[in-house]
Amino acid sequence: MIEQLSEAERVEALEGLPEWDHDEARDAITRSFGFADFVEAFGFMTRVALLAEKADHHPEWSNVYNRVEILLTTHDAGGLSERDIEMAQAIDALVE
Amino acid sequence: MIEQLSEAERVEALEGLPEWDHDEARDAITRSFGFADFVEAFGFMTRVALLAEKADHHPEWSNVYNRVEILLTTHDAGGLSERDIEMAQAIDALVE
Repeated sequence: MIEQLSEAERVEALEGLPEWDHDEARDAITRSFGFADFVEAFGFMTRVALLAEKADHHPEWSNVYNRVEILLTTHDAGGLSERDIEMAQAIDALVE
Repeated sequence: MIEQLSEAERVEALEGLPEWDHDEARDAITRSFGFADFVEAFGFMTRVALLAEKADHHPEWSNVYNRVEILLTTHDAGGLSERDIEMAQAIDALVE
């Protein structure tokens, strides 16, 4: 069973993820990404898809041309968990 | 210059696209797709991405695990155009 992060754990985890915002209503984290064009954006999405499938932890996400919006939360935990933090770190590593 | 479809043209075009709904606020068409799992959903998205890039006409879309929501409209036309109808037909052909 994956446990929801406490407020203190979340605050500490998000210090290491400065590009991500906390969505209080969903207890989720979100980040927007901009790319040069659709090919770059979808290439990024393909890399995230492979990470997500490998981790069996999938984002809620949308794309409009060169923009990608990602929301991470853990349905089984009722909110943010360590799995979201790990996925956000892995996604950040793709664009650094 | 791509022209926005008239109401009569839209009604006629949508008769051939029974799975698509007209979004009046956006003058767009939308369809929801369900798949067995994320791999199937993202595989479909990859095929749509290739169609979209080839046609230089890109969807607004979102994915949550096995669900994909697609919205088509033509920004340059200020609403629905023949390009959206053609893209919807090509997308439908992928899942038939």
